[in-house]
Amino acid sequence: MNIRDWVIERARQAKLASRPLSILSTEVKNQALEAMADAIKANEPAIADANRKDLDAATSLSTAMLDRLTLTPKRIADMQTGLRDVAALPDPVGSRSDMWTRPNGLQIGRVRVPIGVIGIIYESRPNVTADTAGLCLKSGNAVVLRGGSEAIHSNTAIVNILTGAASDAGIPAGAITFLDNPDRQAVTEMLSLTEYIDLIIPRGGEGLMNAVTSQSKIPVIKHDKGVCHIYVDRDADLQMAQDVSFNAKVQRPGTCNATEALLVHEHIAPTFLPAIGMKLQAAGVEIRGCPKTVSLIPNAKRATEDDWGKEFLELILAIKIVDDMDAAMKHIVSYGSEHTETIITNNEAASQRFLKEVDASAVMVNASTRFNDGFQFGLGAEMGISTTRIHARGPMGLEELTCQKFVVHGNGQVRE
Amino acid sequence: MNIRDWVIERARQAKLASRPLSILSTEVKNQALEAMADAIKANEPAIADANRKDLDAATSLSTAMLDRLTLTPKRIADMQTGLRDVAALPDPVGSRSDMWTRPNGLQIGRVRVPIGVIGIIYESRPNVTADTAGLCLKSGNAVVLRGGSEAIHSNTAIVNILTGAASDAGIPAGAITFLDNPDRQAVTEMLSLTEYIDLIIPRGGEGLMNAVTSQSKIPVIKHDKGVCHIYVDRDADLQMAQDVSFNAKVQRPGTCNATEALLVHEHIAPTFLPAIGMKLQAAGVEIRGCPKTVSLIPNAKRATEDDWGKEFLELILAIKIVDDMDAAMKHIVSYGSEHTETIITNNEAASQRFLKEVDASAVMVNASTRFNDGFQFGLGAEMGISTTRIHARGPMGLEELTCQKFVVHGNGQVRE
Repeated sequence: MNIRDWVIERARQAKLASRPLSILSTEVKNQALEAMADAIKANEPAIADANRKDLDAATSLSTAMLDRLTLTPKRIADMQTGLRDVAALPDPVGSRSDMWTRPNGLQIGRVRVPIGVIGIIYESRPNVTADTAGLCLKSGNAVVLRGGSEAIHSNTAIVNILTGAASDAGIPAGAITFLDNPDRQAVTEMLSLTEYIDLIIPRGGEGLMNAVTSQSKIPVIKHDKGVCHIYVDRDADLQMAQDVSFNAKVQRPGTCNATEALLVHEHIAPTFLPAIGMKLQAAGVEIRGCPKTVSLIPNAKRATEDDWGKEFLELILAIKIVDDMDAAMKHIVSYGSEHTETIITNNEAASQRFLKEVDASAVMVNASTRFNDGFQFGLGAEMGISTTRIHARGPMGLEELTCQKFVVHGNGQVRE
Repeated sequence: MNIRDWVIERARQAKLASRPLSILSTEVKNQALEAMADAIKANEPAIADANRKDLDAATSLSTAMLDRLTLTPKRIADMQTGLRDVAALPDPVGSRSDMWTRPNGLQIGRVRVPIGVIGIIYESRPNVTADTAGLCLKSGNAVVLRGGSEAIHSNTAIVNILTGAASDAGIPAGAITFLDNPDRQAVTEMLSLTEYIDLIIPRGGEGLMNAVTSQSKIPVIKHDKGVCHIYVDRDADLQMAQDVSFNAKVQRPGTCNATEALLVHEHIAPTFLPAIGMKLQAAGVEIRGCPKTVSLIPNAKRATEDDWGKEFLELILAIKIVDDMDAAMKHIVSYGSEHTETIITNNEAASQRFLKEVDASAVMVNASTRFNDGFQFGLGAEMGISTTRIHARGPMGLEELTCQKFVVHGNGQVRE
């Protein structure tokens, strides 16, 4: 069988599974999720062995990639916890809006239903396999998983364990489908199957995003880069500004919601910047500043045009002194990626204006950008952080993995 | 300037306009909509003249296409009413969800914001120009309109009148952008501009849908065909079944929510079909039935495999006798387009099961499929009926032309 036919056949099986899956009871889905967690637990050594094979083969990967590929005992335990946590969350499927009644007596409402078949294209991290399979199952969607070739042994082991447990628990075959062919053509074919796959979610770096969005005939919800800013206003509490800025840069710099640039009102810059500069540098942060910033922070480098709007994903912070909030907002429009934007201020009018006029998946007052996250927002779980404006924006929880249908109750109404 | 650069420049202007437009007050937007309606009224003769030029040039169009292209005095008046109706609707922009508070004190909520720049690609009907410009303006979106070449004079006249009035009312230039170049390459270029256009909505026939979805790099919400069914259950009120089926087929057969096929439970077929058959045939409906149907309705034709799943859009109805509701639902899965599906029954268990298990943008009990419509559902207006599963499904009103951003209020929270 050629690759196209093979991918079609796998996607077709997922589509076939998606119908019975969409009307499965919450109880059966939850029991399956618990059984999947149990099976991961029972097969920890096998998963570790498979992961070892991938790591042994990964001779050309960067340290960061190797870290993402590695399944530590904690990460394998986290997969189990994640599946059990998803089982404990409310089922979004079947939840109904208030009904309204039209003058002709028709009663109308909306009910949540699964999207159908979701294709996930991801890199490196094999724990994504279990996490996304759990989220899709709970939300009643079949999933077609396509992991990176570097994680093929880990992913295959995990998927075989999950599908075995799911099948025993009454989940239709095909509901969790893994494309275990490392050929890149499999992705291209997958992205053309509008008849079988309803939504594509790519998770990974910029190269993957661009490849998927340029090729896909299927709707895509991107989980793209975050170039997040903190604007420290004239009326900021400077201690708070320091704590929040430090946290947003340093706590986990490799994430999309870490802050990449600080915009500082010129009135408070002479007080604020030397202190935060010293604290950041002591934590190993390289500072790339505008000329005025460089004059206020010893050992800061001059930023180049390229540094504004860059997702560093490491301990580098760009800093710019701005005349006022308008200049800060203009900078954010020009260089931000509409991911997460924070203002630090005690001025109510300034915070209201910032919340209204700045557009991003999350806009915050006096809080670290690192909070833009499904767990931190209280959604209970997350598929990732959408940077697409339609359907889901920001953290995607279970509800965002569903769509709605209108339901109408009549007693014989006809249109005039 | 070549076509690509010309389209980029127009789309760039729309993007530039979209930012100030997104935060414009409801009052200014409503005044602009009223002014646009006034301007249409003041320029009725000029619009009729421009339409006459299109009609004179339209020597090769079908009668149906000519009808859609024609701007009767009533249609020109309807454009005005439409704009004033949209002005009177609530503004979705800025509406905020309930806020929730996290254990760390963060307050989180969601606020509706415009999508940004919406590209509309449509055929024939020049009234779509005014309708969609009004909906996009009210929802704070810039719009890039691309109408069919056959309506170029009508569309140009309407757009010039609208943009003049909008500009005088304080709407930023570029907010209503019309691509007045009939070259098809303009569409291809438009569909590649992910940097400037956030969403594409195609409105038209299957050829247009396929061309747009296969080419677009921008997210698309399709308004595609409707292959709608009515299932007349064993426990149906037969008089109601007759009235609803007749209405759903005959009242306006050229629309996407008209019924194309009737599925009839075998127990009631011998009573129901001769009566409805006679009534439909008296109204000029051609019946194409399964063998059993043909034996019950004189002069009915035998349906071919091709007739199941066909969007006739005219006075033709396919009829099939089914063993039970399972067979009806199986037929709907195989041949329906997930647009509108109705069951006629007085059996509560049957209606509940049908509502749960049948998946379509609207699923109805005892009502004509013709009600799947934004005005009929009480949304106040509609951009069309989405057949895409993500973001908006079924009638798209003003709210569906917006997206959400998270807003977060803190007092210095940092992540541990």
